[in-house]
Amino acid sequence: MPLGPNRWGKSEVRVSKVFRGQVADDFIDLTVRVLLEGDVAAAHIEGDNSSVLPTDTMRNTVYGMAQEHLTRDLEAFAGVLCEHFLERDDVHTAEVSLAESLWQRGSTHGFVGGGPERRTARLTRGETESTRAGVEGLVVLKTSGSAFENFPKDQFTILAEASDRLLATSITAEWTYSSMPSNTSTAWALARTTLVDRFFEDWSASVQHQGYLMGEQVLSAVPEISEISLRLPNQHHLPFDLTRFDMAWTNVVFHPVSEPYGDIYVTVTR
Amino acid sequence: MPLGPNRWGKSEVRVSKVFRGQVADDFIDLTVRVLLEGDVAAAHIEGDNSSVLPTDTMRNTVYGMAQEHLTRDLEAFAGVLCEHFLERDDVHTAEVSLAESLWQRGSTHGFVGGGPERRTARLTRGETESTRAGVEGLVVLKTSGSAFENFPKDQFTILAEASDRLLATSITAEWTYSSMPSNTSTAWALARTTLVDRFFEDWSASVQHQGYLMGEQVLSAVPEISEISLRLPNQHHLPFDLTRFDMAWTNVVFHPVSEPYGDIYVTVTR
Amino acid sequence: MPLGPNRWGKSEVRVSKVFRGQVADDFIDLTVRVLLEGDVAAAHIEGDNSSVLPTDTMRNTVYGMAQEHLTRDLEAFAGVLCEHFLERDDVHTAEVSLAESLWQRGSTHGFVGGGPERRTARLTRGETESTRAGVEGLVVLKTSGSAFENFPKDQFTILAEASDRLLATSITAEWTYSSMPSNTSTAWALARTTLVDRFFEDWSASVQHQGYLMGEQVLSAVPEISEISLRLPNQHHLPFDLTRFDMAWTNVVFHPVSEPYGDIYVTVTR
Amino acid sequence: MPLGPNRWGKSEVRVSKVFRGQVADDFIDLTVRVLLEGDVAAAHIEGDNSSVLPTDTMRNTVYGMAQEHLTRDLEAFAGVLCEHFLERDDVHTAEVSLAESLWQRGSTHGFVGGGPERRTARLTRGETESTRAGVEGLVVLKTSGSAFENFPKDQFTILAEASDRLLATSITAEWTYSSMPSNTSTAWALARTTLVDRFFEDWSASVQHQGYLMGEQVLSAVPEISEISLRLPNQHHLPFDLTRFDMAWTNVVFHPVSEPYGDIYVTVTR
Repeated sequence: MPLGPNRWGKSEVRVSKVFRGQVADDFIDLTVRVLLEGDVAAAHIEGDNSSVLPTDTMRNTVYGMAQEHLTRDLEAFAGVLCEHFLERDDVHTAEVSLAESLWQRGSTHGFVGGGPERRTARLTRGETESTRAGVEGLVVLKTSGSAFENFPKDQFTILAEASDRLLATSITAEWTYSSMPSNTSTAWALARTTLVDRFFEDWSASVQHQGYLMGEQVLSAVPEISEISLRLPNQHHLPFDLTRFDMAWTNVVFHPVSEPYGDIYVTVTR
Repeated sequence: MPLGPNRWGKSEVRVSKVFRGQVADDFIDLTVRVLLEGDVAAAHIEGDNSSVLPTDTMRNTVYGMAQEHLTRDLEAFAGVLCEHFLERDDVHTAEVSLAESLWQRGSTHGFVGGGPERRTARLTRGETESTRAGVEGLVVLKTSGSAFENFPKDQFTILAEASDRLLATSITAEWTYSSMPSNTSTAWALARTTLVDRFFEDWSASVQHQGYLMGEQVLSAVPEISEISLRLPNQHHLPFDLTRFDMAWTNVVFHPVSEPYGDIYVTVTR
Repeated sequence: MPLGPNRWGKSEVRVSKVFRGQVADDFIDLTVRVLLEGDVAAAHIEGDNSSVLPTDTMRNTVYGMAQEHLTRDLEAFAGVLCEHFLERDDVHTAEVSLAESLWQRGSTHGFVGGGPERRTARLTRGETESTRAGVEGLVVLKTSGSAFENFPKDQFTILAEASDRLLATSITAEWTYSSMPSNTSTAWALARTTLVDRFFEDWSASVQHQGYLMGEQVLSAVPEISEISLRLPNQHHLPFDLTRFDMAWTNVVFHPVSEPYGDIYVTVTR
Repeated sequence: MPLGPNRWGKSEVRVSKVFRGQVADDFIDLTVRVLLEGDVAAAHIEGDNSSVLPTDTMRNTVYGMAQEHLTRDLEAFAGVLCEHFLERDDVHTAEVSLAESLWQRGSTHGFVGGGPERRTARLTRGETESTRAGVEGLVVLKTSGSAFENFPKDQFTILAEASDRLLATSITAEWTYSSMPSNTSTAWALARTTLVDRFFEDWSASVQHQGYLMGEQVLSAVPEISEISLRLPNQHHLPFDLTRFDMAWTNVVFHPVSEPYGDIYVTVTR
């Protein structure tokens, strides 16, 4: 039977890039979809793959092209990708869709992500009593100021030591008030600012180390807080190995990974 | 067999409140969970409901209490709710959890929500060609400046006419460039700002009317744009009828509804 | 500027219907979207709503038509809805989309929903030790055999007493093994079957009562289980009041509600 | 300040395993979380990582252990993992949580997944008219009978040729009726069964080839259908390279990947 309209491509390709600066870094975070149309009737009807550019190759191309060509001009980058795919005679039409997640600069190397951030409060009254407040969905990333080295190695170790890496997390924090602050909104804002500022400013040897430093400073800043618990999922931005494509690795192209994620829980008390 | 630990309550109670001002309104958007513990062994074992406060009543209580007691002091509002439920002798412990979605003021009556806003671009090259850009997840709300009146009525009409209502939507917009702007980021920012500003500033008789005004102004502002398509789901914030509880209705307590939603598509061309 | 293509409608309209039988009931669960095109240029450009059928009315129409016309023949029901909206002269094209969630019959009045059910296990070893197993996402519904009456009333009570109602929940259960069963898969299957069968077979006075009966029977059935905790969110299917449309209420058309939900936690021990 | 309770681990580790048989294969699909407690105060306070087993290593261990130890006895596999991590003196407590997505056998090598499958219908009436039906969320997987070879290679090619691979997809299909079937439920069921059976039974050289064969057979089976469009996202189950751990690769342990995914659209007409 006749083959009707058809397309193939790769969706949800996640790529992040750091624009390294003298004083400050910039950062972009994209999700890319590539869809091609071309001479693939034989692939559908006869199983002949000679014109089916693998979707895995499309993905790799996005990373490979990102190192040289990706800027804030999304349309220009999409144009480079379209042209690349159209170099093949058997590709007739290329559609490239980009979606940029919007991060806001918080420091020279720190960014706050567009997560659905929420202020939280939790009161228990009656036979047990507690007053807790917190924040969830507070997404932060820094392009420098985080290491992970000197960890134990065994048969299953692949991870390379990193003296300076990208670090991103979605902060969930909940703290306990030993006495009610005179203004709960002000206390909340101070705790939240302290979390973000310490994440951006303090060098850390691990997520655990970062979390401890953040918690310690919140306790210093807000005297009514007696204890703080943090959950800091490590939203990995992995270096994408471009040397497989005979390209130099310049430490700017990363692969954000949704799953799995490192899952770190820290509590700091007085 | 023995009953172990147990609790009951209501989760995902959505409540919004407008703080009406002389010049500007303020706005708060909460999701509430109530969980109670108490003398309910007979309910579990014998089916005796005389101590089971219905979770529907808990929900109603949140709305009823919000009119007088809800401010930005989340902990104070949680405390009022806890005390209310503990007035019952058969309730021993009340836990109230609040999560405030963070909106940013954009005008005297307009707010931008913490959605996962993304800038988009979509290029097609080859046998067909187009250059499109847009935005998605741009959540906006206004507390005034929107009406819906004089619509057709039939057997199934319940909706009341509204001369001034809350209006909220998550903007998805995509426009086509007839020629490439010299700076795509600047063009994007101008289009996005125009969408938000017109939503906040222009009185509208319907979502359709609002969308047309927004699209028209984007075309006026950015000469390279030849056409714009908007999808504007109506994220209803419904008045919650407090008169059922012998309370006055003061036009401040609303019930945000996730589903169903009005689904409005508008295209404006040159 | 010229108005381009446009549509309006209502998305995510949730409707469920019970087909009452002598011996067994049948049940259908739909999500509906209505989209109309018509003479609405004046609405967009001039704010004239006289042809804008409110999306709230579209929603109501779905419920109103469901009582008489909804069967398993989805296309027939969609046809009835299309015809109804096309009766208006100012509507030119109607598109109705239906999506039926597939439930599997489990008993004469009980159904298992197509949730992403998962078998779970959780082991802790070291300084503390426990062996737990469970199930999550096990969605069940019964069209009869559940009541909620004789509950306390106060200023905020709206809920009507119900001697026989629809009851639906998504079971999350976790139990503790005091000793490891000889076959963990067999033990799991027996616990799961017991949960589902008791939900279907046992009349209950409340979710709490239902949960206790389910937990008690799991402990009876599997001797290695020492304790079971259930979370039973009440996935409300509310009667949709058709009497507002001068229609008889025949107890077959319901409105499934995602939020808020009653949130019930029960533990049963030996 | 004192460090309070803390844990670290890896969440959302996705692993699938094929149990190869003489006649039929069996298949299991798990999501794993590992959480450890141990001597990591120095890591938090001083940044000393010598006791911080990387969460990446935990992930790798799950795959490494799965080849030999993973069976349907989830608790036994969790026990093996716990014991492994407890071999380290600096780990005091290990918690391993497993969640098994439930697949139903459909053929000797084919499985239907527990997706939220929905039957769909879409009618347009008025100025344009069409009657469409379909299915969405129909998740299928086969452990054999799919290849991808002889595809074009370029600078960015990493993908290895595969003569027999795992193939999984979540079928979205929509077909058009040129005339209304006498029984739409029967017609729907026949089309759905044909899709699943052809996916399981027909060897394919690519997703495109598979999709064409499926569409062609639906047109053969249901004469009222004039055209069918399929969207077949390739839910990649990638071989997890165990040779990096000095282990043999036996073609049974895979890494299911949520993003990115190959995105294949096929239409077959008469």
